[in-house]
Amino acid sequence: MARKVILGFGMSLDGYIARRNGALDFLKIDAEGEALMAEFFAGIDTILMGRKTAAGMVKMRKSGEVPETPGMASYVFSRRWKPGPRDGFEVVNGSLREFVMQLKRRRGKDIYLGGGGGLCRSFLQEDLVDEMYLGIGPMLLGDGIPGFPAGFPQRNFRLRECKSYPNGSVGLRYARVREKKAR
Amino acid sequence: MARKVILGFGMSLDGYIARRNGALDFLKIDAEGEALMAEFFAGIDTILMGRKTAAGMVKMRKSGEVPETPGMASYVFSRRWKPGPRDGFEVVNGSLREFVMQLKRRRGKDIYLGGGGGLCRSFLQEDLVDEMYLGIGPMLLGDGIPGFPAGFPQRNFRLRECKSYPNGSVGLRYARVREKKAR
Repeated sequence: MARKVILGFGMSLDGYIARRNGALDFLKIDAEGEALMAEFFAGIDTILMGRKTAAGMVKMRKSGEVPETPGMASYVFSRRWKPGPRDGFEVVNGSLREFVMQLKRRRGKDIYLGGGGGLCRSFLQEDLVDEMYLGIGPMLLGDGIPGFPAGFPQRNFRLRECKSYPNGSVGLRYARVREKKAR
Repeated sequence: MARKVILGFGMSLDGYIARRNGALDFLKIDAEGEALMAEFFAGIDTILMGRKTAAGMVKMRKSGEVPETPGMASYVFSRRWKPGPRDGFEVVNGSLREFVMQLKRRRGKDIYLGGGGGLCRSFLQEDLVDEMYLGIGPMLLGDGIPGFPAGFPQRNFRLRECKSYPNGSVGLRYARVREKKAR
């Protein structure tokens, strides 16, 4: 089976993945959520993210908010940062499509696209998202950083899983449906 | 039991309730969806909407896309239209809060807030939404008219129902949680 690119994040009901200042405090991850994330990441060996998300990760790693991820290949797409190793990431630029195709030609587990919104938009523009795993928290934030900023063609998905959790979150898994007529 | 204001609409995974041109074609309502809507509207006797939503409704009624709703009190909030009867609606302006409090003092079924986004934002600003019933379709639109345009304080909810349907839609029901510390 080919490796899949899986877009995944937690968001508010109005589609924000973080507050304007970058804070994620509204997404409370309980023990059950941590177990789900551990299960998910067991199927992943490669992480893709944008520059701002990477910068946030570096901060959160230093403060201990998120663990280090040894054994994960972590790529940061950036036109600003110099390509090459940086803070435990590998900075890359150039064509997303070619990069993803290269990854897919290699054997490995699935590939996690963790955001931010700008990179997700680019992936959706290029139709490079194969699956999505979204956690939706039981709140409207009213403002924040959108997970799906506008600016890509309609993409249809098939609902594969819909689960609710005691903390009021909903977990939704989708697979991309690439019917010819829809393109 | 007091009458509740229930915000409800169908939206794409990226939070759009219509395409930029107003089209709703992406939300396919099958027989099951129609039955759900009929069940929902059996508990409603009052509909609130914004001016643009009302104008769209008038068009869709004329073309037969949506049925007439005899026996429903339909109010349109508008600062542009003249207050009074218009196209089967009652146009009102002035304080949302006072209007809703007036409605709640009268006996009746629940009150449906059908959009658009601008009116929903005003209701959320004033914390007048008691429940939400959202249908989420299995697609990203990439652009459109947002159901929850930014510009109101965080509002927390309790998940009351989470159901998935054969067409890939997810139905989510929420009740507003008005804990003192969150305000």
